[in-house]
Amino acid sequence: MSELVRFGIAVEGGLLAAFDRQIQGKGYANRSEAIRDLIRDALVQELARKGRHEMVGTITLVYSHETRELSDRLNHLQHDYHNSIVCANHVHLDAHNCLEVLILRGKADSIQAIADRLIGVKGVKHGKLVLTSTGKELT
Amino acid sequence: MSELVRFGIAVEGGLLAAFDRQIQGKGYANRSEAIRDLIRDALVQELARKGRHEMVGTITLVYSHETRELSDRLNHLQHDYHNSIVCANHVHLDAHNCLEVLILRGKADSIQAIADRLIGVKGVKHGKLVLTSTGKELT
Amino acid sequence: MSELVRFGIAVEGGLLAAFDRQIQGKGYANRSEAIRDLIRDALVQELARKGRHEMVGTITLVYSHETRELSDRLNHLQHDYHNSIVCANHVHLDAHNCLEVLILRGKADSIQAIADRLIGVKGVKHGKLVLTSTGKELT
Amino acid sequence: MSELVRFGIAVEGGLLAAFDRQIQGKGYANRSEAIRDLIRDALVQELARKGRHEMVGTITLVYSHETRELSDRLNHLQHDYHNSIVCANHVHLDAHNCLEVLILRGKADSIQAIADRLIGVKGVKHGKLVLTSTGKELT
Repeated sequence: MSELVRFGIAVEGGLLAAFDRQIQGKGYANRSEAIRDLIRDALVQELARKGRHEMVGTITLVYSHETRELSDRLNHLQHDYHNSIVCANHVHLDAHNCLEVLILRGKADSIQAIADRLIGVKGVKHGKLVLTSTGKELT
Repeated sequence: MSELVRFGIAVEGGLLAAFDRQIQGKGYANRSEAIRDLIRDALVQELARKGRHEMVGTITLVYSHETRELSDRLNHLQHDYHNSIVCANHVHLDAHNCLEVLILRGKADSIQAIADRLIGVKGVKHGKLVLTSTGKELT
Repeated sequence: MSELVRFGIAVEGGLLAAFDRQIQGKGYANRSEAIRDLIRDALVQELARKGRHEMVGTITLVYSHETRELSDRLNHLQHDYHNSIVCANHVHLDAHNCLEVLILRGKADSIQAIADRLIGVKGVKHGKLVLTSTGKELT
Repeated sequence: MSELVRFGIAVEGGLLAAFDRQIQGKGYANRSEAIRDLIRDALVQELARKGRHEMVGTITLVYSHETRELSDRLNHLQHDYHNSIVCANHVHLDAHNCLEVLILRGKADSIQAIADRLIGVKGVKHGKLVLTSTGKELT
């Protein structure tokens, strides 16, 4: 981590009170730590928007393994992108439902395209993508 | 899956054109499949808001393993919730940075509280929670 | 960890020299630590043989996702045992080959039976089971 | 898969009867499939012995997260080999015990060396390595 720099900011009283309640609820030790998290999140969102930056992504999928050939189709599709998919963690939620969490690494817009394609497969009940930093930009 | 029911909807022309471009970009075969995904996502968000429903969550964390005792602290904290955490997948992004993706199962607000606590740990660079359905509500 | 007890043992000189070379190659700090590992491994093997003890298992499978309906079949089979399978981690080795590593928890002989069934599926190229302790017996 | 070639073999009656009982217990459909698995396993063992071949490995570790700084030490060590470790899946077995299952890719003897080093860390209760093929040699 690089050295901490201290500086003052001005925030409306009511807004600050609401923020203090929120960060207390979230268990933050102090405002600085909470605001550093907001800043890092804003930077990650910026990187994701730019698209050409190398990022890490997690895709969360829920589906029923009973949908005919859906496991086959999802596995085939993922192999088309095997260079971008680090691994896929599968949890058998019950006798019918599957959770699959993929970890990807690559350009933000290419991860986004893979997520769109997998989430759009017929039979996938729910899917979400999270894009985050490889850690290099967030010293 | 339960039986499909067909019905008509009315949408402004401009809005529909924009939606058609979006779902084509995402690779959907047709509007029905894309709208079913929107409806399922709205239901999942509703369940997450209610808080008392059993859901599945994935927490994505990025941190540096060089922050002193951070791996220890994150591991200890996770053991406090070992009944809710199914597994945690760790990818060594480079010589310094770690990606950790946890899969959780439990009441939505308890998953949210665990996510807040882990993301708020000093040294965690970025963290995001995704809440999704166990699949039972999304036939 | 419980308190360390010190005691002497007698070993033939040639055997000890060979053991010292082996443990040096493996990076052990001293003979005690290496012998403790041998003892713990012997206890784990004993538990595995008994069969009725709760253990943890990892099943490593290699297969080609191009074998028709193999992903479907493996996923269906695993759902029959969803209460014993904690999670399954999938790595797309290349455009054709899959690695799947399952983590299981249950009675040793039931984990063994699941491993036999999965490894025996036609199209699975290679499979291996490791049984280990839940940690409780190895203080 | 390449084309099947049929050929005859001779086996002592008693041995064959025992083998038939074993493969029935394991759920094999027929002797050919069971013998193909034995052949593939022999080839994998040969590759592992040669050492210089690219293989896949899974390392299963059990330890207590309460051993001071053990999580930190294991995480640091793994980062030294971050190019060989695809991912590490962590299961919180109970309030004290951890299961960690690493997936590695690299030369067989380098995977073996990493396994030796991790299993030899003081505080690791039990550890096992499985080496398998990347699938390319097992058509």
